[in-house]
Amino acid sequence: MSVTTKATIASFGGKLLKLSHAATSTKCEMSFNLYLPPQVFQNPSQKIPVLIYLSGLTCTADNCSEKGFFQHGASKKGIAVLYPDTSPRGLDIPGEADAWDFGTGAGFYVDATNPPYNNGYNMYSYVMEELPQTVFAAFPQLDSSRVSITGHSMGGHGALTLFLRNPGKYKSVSAFAPISNPVNCPWGQKAFTGYFGADQTEKWKEHDATELVKKWNGRLDVLIDVGTGDNFYKQGQLLPENFEKAAKEAGVEGVTVRYQPDYDHSYFTMATFSDDHVEHAAKFLFA
Amino acid sequence: MSVTTKATIASFGGKLLKLSHAATSTKCEMSFNLYLPPQVFQNPSQKIPVLIYLSGLTCTADNCSEKGFFQHGASKKGIAVLYPDTSPRGLDIPGEADAWDFGTGAGFYVDATNPPYNNGYNMYSYVMEELPQTVFAAFPQLDSSRVSITGHSMGGHGALTLFLRNPGKYKSVSAFAPISNPVNCPWGQKAFTGYFGADQTEKWKEHDATELVKKWNGRLDVLIDVGTGDNFYKQGQLLPENFEKAAKEAGVEGVTVRYQPDYDHSYFTMATFSDDHVEHAAKFLFA
Repeated sequence: MSVTTKATIASFGGKLLKLSHAATSTKCEMSFNLYLPPQVFQNPSQKIPVLIYLSGLTCTADNCSEKGFFQHGASKKGIAVLYPDTSPRGLDIPGEADAWDFGTGAGFYVDATNPPYNNGYNMYSYVMEELPQTVFAAFPQLDSSRVSITGHSMGGHGALTLFLRNPGKYKSVSAFAPISNPVNCPWGQKAFTGYFGADQTEKWKEHDATELVKKWNGRLDVLIDVGTGDNFYKQGQLLPENFEKAAKEAGVEGVTVRYQPDYDHSYFTMATFSDDHVEHAAKFLFA
Repeated sequence: MSVTTKATIASFGGKLLKLSHAATSTKCEMSFNLYLPPQVFQNPSQKIPVLIYLSGLTCTADNCSEKGFFQHGASKKGIAVLYPDTSPRGLDIPGEADAWDFGTGAGFYVDATNPPYNNGYNMYSYVMEELPQTVFAAFPQLDSSRVSITGHSMGGHGALTLFLRNPGKYKSVSAFAPISNPVNCPWGQKAFTGYFGADQTEKWKEHDATELVKKWNGRLDVLIDVGTGDNFYKQGQLLPENFEKAAKEAGVEGVTVRYQPDYDHSYFTMATFSDDHVEHAAKFLFA
């Protein structure tokens, strides 16, 4: 459970820590970043809630730490931001680094059941259990009872599915350009074929936000931003309409999908709207 | 004077344009970025002031556009941000790409007089004259009579020296971790030796902020942020104390140098304080 500090960077009055630990669920050393807002240092007796940000395909913990602007909002609200990596690294599974949308940098926040990926590609358990446990043990000032989750693209899929599969575990959920219906898009079909097997379509549905929302009980206060200039949205990789429609048909209220004119799939979009997503999380973390 | 648009990216309600043009002063195609705030599109009859941001060693126009978050403050104030490149590109001068702190990516915002760099390394004229002229011709909504300047490291040197050499040209100046006394630091000595010649020390002083401030008449409302965790500050490459001391001895009032505890030389520092620098510029651009 011990954590190695690789860098400590001053950011918006707080500290961005670049950390790593030996993870058992993913069978490798995992890097991650943790932003501690100024309130951590101003009042050491104050418990600080946590927002988990799950990154998209090809990313590490660094991209959003540098370009997403979450520290701006989090520093004002007094929220720590936890940035996990997107896959195990260096497992040396044959072919894992051959594509940018599968394997390395593309763990899809599932526990693989299909060989050889079942030997370490457990990003679901890693992000839901092992990483938070490690972080809360190493940083006791963080409040394990107040955690929210958000993410981008593949990480938006991760945020939605982790939230929907674990009612009550997270205080709130939001997403940027989430892969909202992976069983019906090329990225999701490729990933789920690789991680679960082509014939395991019932298993696929267990990690599909559109399928999961059909079974959700009660209100779902989710904020989703999708740019209308997002090429992956236009190509049908994201399918937020399917999620919206399923929620509506299931009578699930509170779903807000904002189609932001001209915004693309890049971090410029996160930077623009991250304050709104921090605000959304804060509403529930400080309720 | 024509401008090529390579990309248009939605950012904080406005547009970040990635542009290029055939520059005569630097004898090559020059890339630059221009952020148009939302006010440009909301009210086409409104003239919009401009903040020029000069980047540091090794950077292009993209680094600060992605990581500096000037768009956040500029979008609120209604200020366009112009991000020039840091040197000519592709002149194929022998040796120009051999070092990261001289030549390519390191034009130092001077007009070189020393061969072979006198053949195109004219970043002073380029940033002061050709690029703004090109931009104001292509974007008539921008107000050529209201321009401020800022920059980081080598670009902080550029901002201070362009401002101090041209009284009245810019409405305000600020800087992050500027190379404040280049004639007395290794980076500056190397650059000025290469661009002016080892024996041209009087010429060197004409591009040294600490030397220039000694001759400044009147008040100088400059905001400078330097991180105490900045390794280049610790190594004596920046020397803001020399600038402060020279200003004080010359009776120049209004100089604010903030030593920010633990902040480093990276864009995390700009991101944290860019709102303050936009605010500083706005005070004079909208006076």
